[in-house]
Amino acid sequence: MVNYSVPRGYRFAASASGIKKSGKLDLGLIVSDQPARCAGVYTRNQVVAAPLQLTKDRLAAGQCQAILVNSGNANACTGAAGLDVARACGDLAARRLKIDPQLIALASTGVIGQPLSLAPFERALPGLAENLRTDGMAAVAEAMRTTDRYAKIASAQLEIAGHSCRIVGLAKGAGMIHPDMATMLAFVLTDAELAAPHLQRLLSAAVKSSFNSITVDGDTSTNDMVLLLANGAAPGVAILPESEAEALFVQELERVLLELAKMIVRDGEGATKVAEIQVCGAQSDAAARQIARAVATSSLVKTAFFGEDANWGRIIAAVGYAGVPIDPALIDIYFDQVQVVRGGLFVGPEVEAPATAVLKQAEFCVRIDLHQAQGAARYYTSDLTYDYVKINADYRT
Amino acid sequence: MVNYSVPRGYRFAASASGIKKSGKLDLGLIVSDQPARCAGVYTRNQVVAAPLQLTKDRLAAGQCQAILVNSGNANACTGAAGLDVARACGDLAARRLKIDPQLIALASTGVIGQPLSLAPFERALPGLAENLRTDGMAAVAEAMRTTDRYAKIASAQLEIAGHSCRIVGLAKGAGMIHPDMATMLAFVLTDAELAAPHLQRLLSAAVKSSFNSITVDGDTSTNDMVLLLANGAAPGVAILPESEAEALFVQELERVLLELAKMIVRDGEGATKVAEIQVCGAQSDAAARQIARAVATSSLVKTAFFGEDANWGRIIAAVGYAGVPIDPALIDIYFDQVQVVRGGLFVGPEVEAPATAVLKQAEFCVRIDLHQAQGAARYYTSDLTYDYVKINADYRT
Repeated sequence: MVNYSVPRGYRFAASASGIKKSGKLDLGLIVSDQPARCAGVYTRNQVVAAPLQLTKDRLAAGQCQAILVNSGNANACTGAAGLDVARACGDLAARRLKIDPQLIALASTGVIGQPLSLAPFERALPGLAENLRTDGMAAVAEAMRTTDRYAKIASAQLEIAGHSCRIVGLAKGAGMIHPDMATMLAFVLTDAELAAPHLQRLLSAAVKSSFNSITVDGDTSTNDMVLLLANGAAPGVAILPESEAEALFVQELERVLLELAKMIVRDGEGATKVAEIQVCGAQSDAAARQIARAVATSSLVKTAFFGEDANWGRIIAAVGYAGVPIDPALIDIYFDQVQVVRGGLFVGPEVEAPATAVLKQAEFCVRIDLHQAQGAARYYTSDLTYDYVKINADYRT
Repeated sequence: MVNYSVPRGYRFAASASGIKKSGKLDLGLIVSDQPARCAGVYTRNQVVAAPLQLTKDRLAAGQCQAILVNSGNANACTGAAGLDVARACGDLAARRLKIDPQLIALASTGVIGQPLSLAPFERALPGLAENLRTDGMAAVAEAMRTTDRYAKIASAQLEIAGHSCRIVGLAKGAGMIHPDMATMLAFVLTDAELAAPHLQRLLSAAVKSSFNSITVDGDTSTNDMVLLLANGAAPGVAILPESEAEALFVQELERVLLELAKMIVRDGEGATKVAEIQVCGAQSDAAARQIARAVATSSLVKTAFFGEDANWGRIIAAVGYAGVPIDPALIDIYFDQVQVVRGGLFVGPEVEAPATAVLKQAEFCVRIDLHQAQGAARYYTSDLTYDYVKINADYRT
């Protein structure tokens, strides 16, 4: 295990409560010693899981002290009964932790449409509350896994005006959606001090260039949630808008989120490769993003990556249908440093071998230059493989 | 081979010209004895193949007498040289047929980004022009194939005011796009008489509910083209707007196009199943269509179909992210006649077995009732299989 910087003032505990039949860790608790300022980004799916509904309402006030997360059951499409169970889980934790239930965030991931039982929470919560430890973070990340091949943690340590502060993120996800073993979840903790509306602005921006710029299968789930807590436990690290400290904090926050996002793509169901789709020279950043997304989500492009086939035709076709005005005769395409298309035309057979060599790597970059203006964007995607089909076709059988 | 109704006044020829290295049929010619009124629907991809650019311009006048189609090379992303070759192919055919080059439609499908040589056309065109036959249609459909497992023809015969007329369609396609062995092409011929603007209205409407309501991988190609020719060779069958004859003609035209469209889905690369996604009770037909499309293009839904997994969670999640306002608590979902979701909730474990039995069929229907208003739409999709990945990963190797 790599060493992580754990921010001050947070404690963690995890347990195998029995929600997962396998007996693996399935329940995690994160508690801040003091109520933290917080921000959240939630799924845009209109079918929203019960815990997400509660959490979104509670955290709108910008305060949070604890996160209770379970895997093995998403508590989605469970109606009024699902909301009651989620609320009851939060109440159990609130009583044990002796804090206001409104300060407790709830998150679930797993099978959808199955009733979530309160019993495992009743059994496990006393032990969780008693065993909170500053070094329990890795166990919580483990307890968040569903089809994830590995737990995902990234962290940063930064100096602000001679004082140190830390950012750490825990994530789960191995596809943008698995409604029956849902979801992308990320919890980001810092001991810096920031006001809640400030935190929300920084989180929304950082999510756009990280979790919202990755795709495994292009779907979004009923349970997706990213939370950012700032408890101010690091002495002397209050970060104000438009300050130098803010610029440094944003840089490290983005790095942590992007690192987690890339871990998710790398762990994409059945994935063997991670490709960065870079679009530049577009009319605007938004136009570049739309094109990058079209290329990154094309099944034909993703299958060609799996086949290590430098199939620029599929890429230029995806650029052409992305819905953004382009001039095909201006387009250049590179695989890493190897140019394969110049002015919309194939450079020539001599680039086939070097381009194929690029695709044989586990990670590579496809750069598309539209030569229209200065708009640019990045997207990260995995390849589409036999194992993607296998994992998703066989899951419930 | 099934018997097809061939409209009067058309002749056909096909040849193995050598564009395909395999020596299979790769060049087809369709000629109407008289100039026909015509309509066209073309790819919305901004990267447009050379033959499509020429054809779109030429047919804008509403007249066409011949279609020259080749497989094995898409003549796309070939720049000015590609346009020159396409024009020269048309000129060769025009001289042999002694008609105006402006009356000749050109279509290509195959590898993109490779120069198309004029030589095979020079060798083959004299023979093609000499061997035009009224019973040569099946050979032209063969010559249009790339990865198609079978040639695609559908036809109708109808009586209008005591006179018979015919509609026949030839199509190719086994995926919505294969830029390196592109494309969806369809040529529809009738011996009824209709004015060109009328023809265009009827074609655009019929394409919407057929070729534009199918998906294999959600991509669109550089070469997609649907042409409809009406040569008026059937005596006494002039069809006027808003007439009873028009209603009958539209019904049969739509049936022919839908039949071809379903053949394409059934032949979808690696497909083992065809699913009809039916959405009803939506705020509008457009809203229903947007939801049907989201479900039909979801990789997770398509993979579940392959796994014969009655995974309604993935379906309801796709409904939720389609971008149309819905109320999850109103949604009903059926697999054929088996209801699995009622008011957004799982009906119960007793429906698992019958729902799975539905998915074991080669064709089935998923019906989603939103209970909001009267909007409805249909989409046809294939399953996502190991063989889809295999075909698209291994193609160029």
